[in-house]
Amino acid sequence: MDRNTYKSRLNLIAKSISKQGADCLVSVKPANVTWLTGFTGQDSWLIVFPRFAALITDSRYTEQALAQSPYCKIIDRKGSIVNAAAEIITKYKAKIAAVEKSIFLADFQSLKKNLRCRLKPAEQIIESARRTKDKMEVSAIAGAAKIAAKAFEKTMRQIKPQMTENTIAGMLDFEIRKAGGTNSFETIVAFGPNASRPHHQPTSRKLKKNDNILVDFGVRLNGYCCDLTRCFSIAKSSALFNKVYNVVKQSQTAAIKMLKAGIEIKAVDAAAREIIKKAGLPVYGHGTGHGLGLEVHELPIVSGKTKGKLETGDCITIEPAVYIPGHLGVRIEDDCLITQNGCIILTAGCPKI
Amino acid sequence: MDRNTYKSRLNLIAKSISKQGADCLVSVKPANVTWLTGFTGQDSWLIVFPRFAALITDSRYTEQALAQSPYCKIIDRKGSIVNAAAEIITKYKAKIAAVEKSIFLADFQSLKKNLRCRLKPAEQIIESARRTKDKMEVSAIAGAAKIAAKAFEKTMRQIKPQMTENTIAGMLDFEIRKAGGTNSFETIVAFGPNASRPHHQPTSRKLKKNDNILVDFGVRLNGYCCDLTRCFSIAKSSALFNKVYNVVKQSQTAAIKMLKAGIEIKAVDAAAREIIKKAGLPVYGHGTGHGLGLEVHELPIVSGKTKGKLETGDCITIEPAVYIPGHLGVRIEDDCLITQNGCIILTAGCPKI
Repeated sequence: MDRNTYKSRLNLIAKSISKQGADCLVSVKPANVTWLTGFTGQDSWLIVFPRFAALITDSRYTEQALAQSPYCKIIDRKGSIVNAAAEIITKYKAKIAAVEKSIFLADFQSLKKNLRCRLKPAEQIIESARRTKDKMEVSAIAGAAKIAAKAFEKTMRQIKPQMTENTIAGMLDFEIRKAGGTNSFETIVAFGPNASRPHHQPTSRKLKKNDNILVDFGVRLNGYCCDLTRCFSIAKSSALFNKVYNVVKQSQTAAIKMLKAGIEIKAVDAAAREIIKKAGLPVYGHGTGHGLGLEVHELPIVSGKTKGKLETGDCITIEPAVYIPGHLGVRIEDDCLITQNGCIILTAGCPKI
Repeated sequence: MDRNTYKSRLNLIAKSISKQGADCLVSVKPANVTWLTGFTGQDSWLIVFPRFAALITDSRYTEQALAQSPYCKIIDRKGSIVNAAAEIITKYKAKIAAVEKSIFLADFQSLKKNLRCRLKPAEQIIESARRTKDKMEVSAIAGAAKIAAKAFEKTMRQIKPQMTENTIAGMLDFEIRKAGGTNSFETIVAFGPNASRPHHQPTSRKLKKNDNILVDFGVRLNGYCCDLTRCFSIAKSSALFNKVYNVVKQSQTAAIKMLKAGIEIKAVDAAAREIIKKAGLPVYGHGTGHGLGLEVHELPIVSGKTKGKLETGDCITIEPAVYIPGHLGVRIEDDCLITQNGCIILTAGCPKI
């Protein structure tokens, strides 16, 4: 990302602040702060004024903030983050400060106590702006997906019976690190019936030769995340598994075929579920997908409750599934960039059965 | 942990709810929910009433919740978590609901809209109760520390010049996984001058033979965290590094020697800083330590601003440091269990220079 990217993002937000009738915006969500400034540390707030932005951090991150965000005013706080924010807001005479709703209630109350000006919960302007990915962002997600594919293939080749879920998760994470990425969330490896828990945490269960393996993992590269799920086996799968797998694959294919700018999001969700329902299998309880970017879960949510349409530049997962507790779980997940006429599957390089 | 542990914790909290003048408590922090129920999933809230507790989760975690928390009422929500919480609070006719202050402002406001009853920000009762570790908790932290020591030693033996920070972080994480643990936070590996950033993120910088290496990492075992930092080199260290290292070691030793129940926390902080100051070196900007348990950072905070004394059962880090930007960073961190007459260093098994 170059400096101009951050400048124009800050300008965009600065304009929307006055439209909201506020004099400044207090941004507290790490991904929002990163998107606006390039700063990748934690525990830091950004206060955006019409003409400048102040990044409040502490000694753990000051050196990093100066290097990553040279055009922000870097505040190396000594006291609490709330006190430092109140000081800046008072100093620059804001009368109405918009505050992101992802602030903790405790911080909001404490900020209120420390300030004479009015506080106003802000609309999700930054989250909405973050939804549309620019070229640099898409290339970061695609880069993460490339590392994911490479790490997955290398791991597949090393899997042997008797290895634990924990070991395989560790092997995969190590391959990701060696390829220059980090995990975008804690890797899920589930053998056999463990896969019926969508967010299973790896255990010391040992792999039996005919176990099916579900791996749900993601890579973070330059701050951006990918997120994918593969199901496979190192030997022969059961007839039930094969049947379920084919249905989930059809479901995913049907949803992906529909993707393009202008399509109703809930129609995509319905299409994926319909195929599973028709096959007489239990329909998954979670959404069909979600946006990804600086966070693993961001806008838009792909579910039956989402109003609105897909837009060019959306980057979403499609991840239908079938869970049969006590027996198996199958989920197939890919990341898709929405274009005017269709989509580009960013995780296509990662092999499927 | 056995069932009785959770029952007595829930009873403890149920009693404090009525003392606060509320009819129920909405607990939203994952670590608090885990401490009260044993449930280790995410995105789930617990509502504690005097006679029962309702765990609101969704299909991703239902199977897990039923297995981990059989004595809670498990609510498999279909709509939003806020709506499900409002429904339960209304159904059981609470007139005043206490809500943890670590709730997001957005959720608090939305809960308020959905309810006729009064909402009251709760005191940090669970966090305070979590401060004192029982035998099972100490043994989990000690177990995590044992894995950390083993993984660190195995990693040390594999380090070679030209390896990157990323690769070494990956090697360490893999050893942790193989030993049955997971990371309690993202591993920090910093070579040479990179170590002056306390929260450095590993890069592709290659190890030069005489680089000093800082590793700050933690292991999670059965939900409980350890957190430790070691500095070393695979060849010869500079005279400056050796001088600084010895001062930091003295500082840490002095602080650890003071530890016992009844000691003022700020006195421990001051003792650690005093030695660095006397040596004419820059004093670290962060705290001297923090509590750890289900979270890597919890009560008590060991800083010059903390009021109060250490107590038996506190489990804290002691981590003084010296940072010289452009040159080096040295931090030494161990985890200590406070006893009546001193402390037990839980991370003593992990070798130092």
